[in-house]
Amino acid sequence: MRGLLEARDLDAALVTHQVNVRYLTGFTGSNGALLLTVAGSAMLATDGRYTDQATQQCRDVPAITTRALAGDLLAKAGNVGRLGVETHAMTVDAHTALAANLAAEASTTVALASLGRAVEQLREVKDPTEVDAVARACAISTEALEQLLAGPLVGRGERELARDLEWRMFALGAEAVAFDTIVAGGPHSAVPHHEPTDRALAPGDLLKIDFGARVDGYHADCTRTCVLGEPADWQREIHAAVRDAQRAGVDAMVTGAPVAQPDAAARQVLDEAGWLDRFTTGIGHGVGLQIHEDPFVGPRHLGRLGERSTITMEPGVYLPGRGGVRIEDTVVVGPAAPRVLTDTTRELLVVG
Amino acid sequence: MRGLLEARDLDAALVTHQVNVRYLTGFTGSNGALLLTVAGSAMLATDGRYTDQATQQCRDVPAITTRALAGDLLAKAGNVGRLGVETHAMTVDAHTALAANLAAEASTTVALASLGRAVEQLREVKDPTEVDAVARACAISTEALEQLLAGPLVGRGERELARDLEWRMFALGAEAVAFDTIVAGGPHSAVPHHEPTDRALAPGDLLKIDFGARVDGYHADCTRTCVLGEPADWQREIHAAVRDAQRAGVDAMVTGAPVAQPDAAARQVLDEAGWLDRFTTGIGHGVGLQIHEDPFVGPRHLGRLGERSTITMEPGVYLPGRGGVRIEDTVVVGPAAPRVLTDTTRELLVVG
Repeated sequence: MRGLLEARDLDAALVTHQVNVRYLTGFTGSNGALLLTVAGSAMLATDGRYTDQATQQCRDVPAITTRALAGDLLAKAGNVGRLGVETHAMTVDAHTALAANLAAEASTTVALASLGRAVEQLREVKDPTEVDAVARACAISTEALEQLLAGPLVGRGERELARDLEWRMFALGAEAVAFDTIVAGGPHSAVPHHEPTDRALAPGDLLKIDFGARVDGYHADCTRTCVLGEPADWQREIHAAVRDAQRAGVDAMVTGAPVAQPDAAARQVLDEAGWLDRFTTGIGHGVGLQIHEDPFVGPRHLGRLGERSTITMEPGVYLPGRGGVRIEDTVVVGPAAPRVLTDTTRELLVVG
Repeated sequence: MRGLLEARDLDAALVTHQVNVRYLTGFTGSNGALLLTVAGSAMLATDGRYTDQATQQCRDVPAITTRALAGDLLAKAGNVGRLGVETHAMTVDAHTALAANLAAEASTTVALASLGRAVEQLREVKDPTEVDAVARACAISTEALEQLLAGPLVGRGERELARDLEWRMFALGAEAVAFDTIVAGGPHSAVPHHEPTDRALAPGDLLKIDFGARVDGYHADCTRTCVLGEPADWQREIHAAVRDAQRAGVDAMVTGAPVAQPDAAARQVLDEAGWLDRFTTGIGHGVGLQIHEDPFVGPRHLGRLGERSTITMEPGVYLPGRGGVRIEDTVVVGPAAPRVLTDTTRELLVVG
């Protein structure tokens, strides 16, 4: 963090995006602000609801209790000079209030600047504890899916199946679901982000399930598509195309590779199979304390993959009115090959 | 909305806070912007993922598909003059980008101003369809609670009970839970916003449950506190104090009353009972498309209660290390008396 402040010519950073406060301090309350100086000092501010919690969770960061988080942090810090704030997450009104507050303090001359996505940049590369949390969330997710797919499935509604899967994740130790579970049967599987309905699953349906558990604040993200009964040729064909594209994308997730490379690798396979024009969503994203976080994978994204980044790869083929296939894994970038954390079969499962 | 624009001397409003876009148009996607002019025209912008959905959900508002939502809306609208934006919800970076975009368009002279919480102000008073959705969410919530409290309860963990209650709400028709369910047993009940653990419920425990269902986007919010086995005198005493305070607060929720009045009424009862210093949280808030929304009830809050506002009343007494009681209802403000939507007993239930 100190290096990032220096690179931005900042004397201090005011971190107010809650997930970034949590990342840097361990504090999980819903209202906190953190002041870091380039000299290495740190101070957390929160309100009276969280005084005890802040003390317990952040033993190495002094915490103050106040209603005026940013104002009191800055008052205590004195003249911090050039201060970076999280303009990508701070509202205009909060920024205006902070500037007015600073202007009213005649004794200090703080200049507001943008910290940019500095903390998000740090969060891209996970430490081993973080990788372990994502891995546990992924293991719970795939175990719950395998239980669910053991069936029976025919005749059950999408919503009920989503609740069943979530219930299994909780029973296996999830603290929450990572996001609203997608269960999409038959023609609904062609809708990339379908919201589950009471439509009952029928023989011949593709069944697409996009889901994940959350453990210690860290998310899993996994999608599998199976078929109820004997697959039709078109179902086999699009599934094989997506499976091969997904594998190519995953294989490209090695340390130091350009972020755009896994995208290009997967798209090339879809293109050669003739299905690229039926792929309409994003192909991958970082996953950690947020379900979608940096780095986002795509043709226009710059930078290189850092070792121990946890990222999804999720190509798909969507045929409106008929059905669709998506296969998605959460992987950890590694030097020779990535490690797949959502480790359950990617072959076309025939279920019932 | 037109009146609110006129009162702010605005020629148009750019609504970008998603819940406000939903309120005004019915569009439930995660990325939309709405431009409204004081002359009465409206246009929605969203991205390619939501083209069909926007057309279906917003039949009376023309929609355009673009990646540059605000920019393209304004380009189509031409010179709108003084434009109000939602500075309380818009990030600094989004505001800066919008201003730069406008400055680059030599043909228009749009002046940015703040719309303030104009849409939140409209949302305070619900129309009958909205009240009905909140009422259905509340009915599901209380029915699920009654099922859960039928027991057995002793020996079960807080987390497992929370999942059980949520499962029952889904089975009764909830589309989601309104917020993370709080189940707090024994000393944990003294923590206002306790996160459920695996601690097993034991005889003699107070059991505090704060929970709700979501239906058609609208939230329910309800808290009840019961006791496992014969209540101790101190448990009866704090429960009675909270029950009486809560009733006084609810009774004060009549059309046209100052927003601060229910707060004063409830606090007076707690004060007379000698427990006011053990009440440490907010006492009530609006509930609707968001679980916490305007109006917030408290001593320093201005304004008057509007008919058909849906608001919570939730005093409590918290004794650290021993236990706590909170009782919370969601009510609809009415002319002579409010209607309580979370209609299940507020007496001290003895459960097991």
